Order: sequence, then structure tokens, then C-alpha cells
Amino acid sequence: MRTVWWDEGRVRLINQQRLPGALVYVTCEDYHRVATAITTMEIRGAPAIGVAAALALALAAHHSTATSRVALLAELTAAAAALKGTRPTARNLFWAVDRVLQAAAALDGDVREVAAGVVREAQAIAAEDIAANKALGTHGAPLLADGDVVGTICNAGWLATAGEYGTALGVIKVAHEQGTRLSVIALETRPVLQGARLTAFELHHDGIPVTVACDGAIGSLCAQGRIDKFICGADRVLVADGCAVINKVGTHTVALAAKQYGVPFYVAAPLSTFDFQHHQGDVEIEERDPREVTTIGGRRLVPPGVPVLNPAFDITPPQLVDALITERGVIHPPFTPNLRRFLS
Amino acid sequence: MRTVWWDEGRVRLINQQRLPGALVYVTCEDYHRVATAITTMEIRGAPAIGVAAALALALAAHHSTATSRVALLAELTAAAAALKGTRPTARNLFWAVDRVLQAAAALDGDVREVAAGVVREAQAIAAEDIAANKALGTHGAPLLADGDVVGTICNAGWLATAGEYGTALGVIKVAHEQGTRLSVIALETRPVLQGARLTAFELHHDGIPVTVACDGAIGSLCAQGRIDKFICGADRVLVADGCAVINKVGTHTVALAAKQYGVPFYVAAPLSTFDFQHHQGDVEIEERDPREVTTIGGRRLVPPGVPVLNPAFDITPPQLVDALITERGVIHPPFTPNLRRFLS
Repeated sequence: MRTVWWDEGRVRLINQQRLPGALVYVTCEDYHRVATAITTMEIRGAPAIGVAAALALALAAHHSTATSRVALLAELTAAAAALKGTRPTARNLFWAVDRVLQAAAALDGDVREVAAGVVREAQAIAAEDIAANKALGTHGAPLLADGDVVGTICNAGWLATAGEYGTALGVIKVAHEQGTRLSVIALETRPVLQGARLTAFELHHDGIPVTVACDGAIGSLCAQGRIDKFICGADRVLVADGCAVINKVGTHTVALAAKQYGVPFYVAAPLSTFDFQHHQGDVEIEERDPREVTTIGGRRLVPPGVPVLNPAFDITPPQLVDALITERGVIHPPFTPNLRRFLS
Repeated sequence: MRTVWWDEGRVRLINQQRLPGALVYVTCEDYHRVATAITTMEIRGAPAIGVAAALALALAAHHSTATSRVALLAELTAAAAALKGTRPTARNLFWAVDRVLQAAAALDGDVREVAAGVVREAQAIAAEDIAANKALGTHGAPLLADGDVVGTICNAGWLATAGEYGTALGVIKVAHEQGTRLSVIALETRPVLQGARLTAFELHHDGIPVTVACDGAIGSLCAQGRIDKFICGADRVLVADGCAVINKVGTHTVALAAKQYGVPFYVAAPLSTFDFQHHQGDVEIEERDPREVTTIGGRRLVPPGVPVLNPAFDITPPQLVDALITERGVIHPPFTPNLRRFLS
């Protein structure tokens, strides 16, 4: 179960806009096609778009006709800029692109050796993503107890990563594999409905009971004691802001309901999602096409002339988060000092 | 601007499932057709379905071939039971049906005179609903200040009532008519999207600036200070539970976000929505067809075999409500003693 992968000089990925109705693969012959796939959300999920961007640079290197190391690095720099321009918010995209660029710059040898090294680095990022998410799931699984009903928003499963486990759903899947009986309430996650389409698809496929609910129901679900724990992924964790969590729009709303009714609220993300440099004001919260909201299945529902707010993400203050689950272990508040100690 | 009205022996109503794309009228020749319109949400909104049910009884009386007063009352009792079976949660439906039945039982005269009295009573309920909502808007308007951005959920406008003003939107419209400059953020309100379709349509038509946002965005909108006040309607106010508010699913979630970030949260409802008898446990929260969630525009989005929670309403605790706006005035906490003093 891979979301995006290197296939002998091509990048292949699952078109997630078509799920769950159809399993359609996209074959990318050049990095521009990968960039388009990221922009259109054929591939989405912070770790997955990081891996996709790394593999896009591998494509650029592999097919380059540059005759010098310098010329190749210039091409990669241009490709990196284009890839960074696809979506502004998720950390992993920038992390992965910068890592590949730095690896390329550090590689010795001629142009072919550098190109081969770029392909290896991108494939390493994909492999490490899968390994990190499995480790993350193993660390997080003990937070879940037998019989728990676990809430989640958006899709933080294998489809949101390079493959296999995923982040928030990785925790659930590892616990499930260990014999913990769980069921999941997946919020549908307007406007793109990643919860209804992708999370429901993944968990149902894995034999983990899943029920879909509209996003607005979270307040009463928590009030009624129908959710025991809540786990989501992250697009960027702002370490300099106490580990504020940028994630799919709606996450902040969920965290308020969870806090009010004593439901533990966990965020699962690999360290590639953590931003050690920027503050909230430095990060662009992507505002996407209004048609994601106004038009469903080709039918326009919002009257013409009425504007729409369509932020793809929101920022959850760290005070609403009970634990951060990473591949290195579970971090409890206060997050930033505990994280720094953890990594030192 | 009438939502449902008596038209010489027929009941006509706007098919709200077709808005805003098309303005289509439904003509009901008998009470069964009105009952169907309520069940299918061709007409919706607590006050509107109360008026529709009253007019349905008027249809039953007007076309009755009963030859005795007793036989007519028996027919009306049967029709009342059918109408009460359409939707379980909104108070106004039961209130209006009972009021017409009681009026019929109290009427003197022969069968034709009783039938004529039933028609008059139903029309009085419609007229009083419009008057009550205009009065409610007048009482509530001073709560809004020049420049306010007002949030709302679902549709509590003229489409949700007999016509003209509406409840929550009535407050906004009266303030607008008085020269208060307002803009509105309408939550789209999944699954039936009354906010995106109906509230946006009404306000845009009335020249009040309105922007649509997904329901999940409410947490970050409140955190960012982008909403100054929030007003919604109600389907039932439980006086015996301190005036807990049953309203469209999502309302409880909104109220949590508003409370957390100090956004005043107002509920606007005529007294016909107030239930002086029942507690929360006595009221059925309607669970509607899963297809409202699973299928959009004919396309199935939730994978087959995955169950769905689709409660139409939730219950907001009175601690999260800052004021109740009624046709008799604005009620502040503690609501239940203040309401009883108000009415005595």
C-alpha cells in the first residue's frame, strides 16, 4: 500500500480525488506533473506531498540533460522553487525539497553520480517516512485502551503519507494489530471530504469499524461521551509557538469541544512536520478555490455573487493538545522544552 | 415573501430543496401532501413547519365530507396524528397542531362552522408567526452594533417561518433596516446545507453582505476575532432544563467556540418554540436518512458498508447561551426564572 513511489524513471501516485469510487493511478513523467498533482490534491497529506516533491526532484535529476554538476544543481534549484510554490502550509514539502537540494549540493562526483544520488535521497525520504510512521504508531498505540471510540478529522492514514501506516491512523492501526478493540468516528471534513472518502475507505478496508459524522456534530458527540480519544495528524507544528498545530480546518473546533468535555486530544506527526523556525504570523494559511465550497457534484449550491471563506487549515493552540506523538516517542506538555530535551 | 400560505382551499409552499437554483412552488390539495413536504424538508424550519401543519389541518377541515361535528373532530384528530408523525424534534409542529385541535373542539356551531373556524385558526397562526418574528427582530436588533460581523448557522430566516422576517435573520434584518451596518458569516450547515443555500440566498437578496464558510471553520474564526456576535434560531427550547436549546446539529459546537473566545451567543425564537413541559430525555433527536451524508449530487462519497451518524439536531446547554430573543423581549440568564417572571 504505497501512495506515491519511484517506478524506473517515473513517479506513480494514487489519484485521491477519485477515491473511494475508483482506484486510479497517475504516472508522472516530469516534475511539473507531480507539482500539478500536489496543487490539485490528487495527492495530499503533509508527509505524502513531502515525499512526492522529493520524488519530483528525483525525476528532474534523472531526466536532466545537464552536462555539468553546476548546471544540474541549477535545474534542481528551479524545480525546487516550482515545487515549493504548489502549496504553502504543510511543513514536509519544504523540509523534503530542502533536504534533497542539500544532499545534491553535498554529493561528490560527476553529473550522473549527482543525479543518481538525488534519486537515492528521494527514495530514502520515502522509506524513512514509512518507517517513521510505523514507529510513531508503535509509540502512540498505548494511549488507546480496549473499547475506545476514537475520533479523527481529515485523513491522516497511509494515503496521507508515503504508504502503509499513516500518522493518526497509524496509531489506531498499530493498536488494532496489537489486539486493542477500537472503533473510529471519522468527521467527514468539508470541503474536500477526506474523512468521508479516504479515512472511511482506509479503515473499512483494514477491518476497523468506522462511522462517518458531519463536522458540526463534534460538540454533541463529545458532550454525550460518545468519543473517548481524538487523534489527528498535522501539516506543520510550530515549535517556536509552543508547538501550535496547523492542521486541516476544523481541527481547532474539534480541540475546543474535546477540551470542554475532557476528551484527550492527540496529534500524531513525524518530525519532518515540525517547524523549528517560524511563528504563526510567518506561515501562510492556504486559501483554496471557492468552488470547493460552492459547488458539489457539478451543482452550484451557494448563490452566485456570494463570497466564500475557504481556508484549508487552522491553527490549534498547544493548550488544547494533550500529547504529540512522534517517531521518537510521545511528548507531553510543556511541548517545546520537552521536545528540545527529547532531541538533544 | 411567504413560505407557506392558504390559497382558497389549497396550501402552497416554496420547495426549499430546490433553492437557490430554482424557485419552485408545491401545491397541496390535501394534508397528506403537506405531511410529505415536511418529511422531505421541502418545507423546513421550526416555525414554518408549525404553520404548515396548522394549514394542513385547515385543508383537512375545508375538504371534509363529515356530516357531523363529532365526525369532523375525529378526522382532524387522525390528521393531527399523521402530521405529528412527520418530524419529532421541533416544538412548533406539536404546538400548532394542538392549538388548532383545541380551537376546533372549543368551536360552537355545525360542521361547516367548525371547519371554517379551523381554517381561520390556522391562518391566525400564520399571521401571528410573522408578527411575532417581526417583534422578536425589533427586540433583538439593539444587541447588534454598527460594523458587527454576525455568525449564523442553518437558516433561521423568512424561509424558516411563515414569511417576511424570520427569527435569527429577522434580528439582523431589522437592525439592517434601522441603518446598522452588518455583515454575516453563514456556516454552510452540513448535511442539508441550509446555510449555504438558504441563508446566503435570503441575505444576498436583501442586500446584506454575506459570506459562506464551512462549519469546521468556526473555531478559528472565533479565535481570530472575525465574528463579533453569533445568532441562531431554535427548534425547541427546553424551559424545564434551564432553557437548553435544541437546534440544528452544529449549534452546540458553535456555542463552545463562541464561549471560549468571548463571542456573544444569542438564540432567537418565538414562544411557540418553547417547551414548558419536557426534559432532554423526553425529546427525540431526529436521526435522518444516511444518504443526506453519504451521497452528494448523486455521487456516493462514503464507501458502501460504512455507517453514518446523521442527527438533525443537537442540544446546547444554557450556560453557553448569552440571551434568548423572543417576541416579548430579550431574556438574560438565569433563563427559566426570568422567562417565568416575564410571562407572569
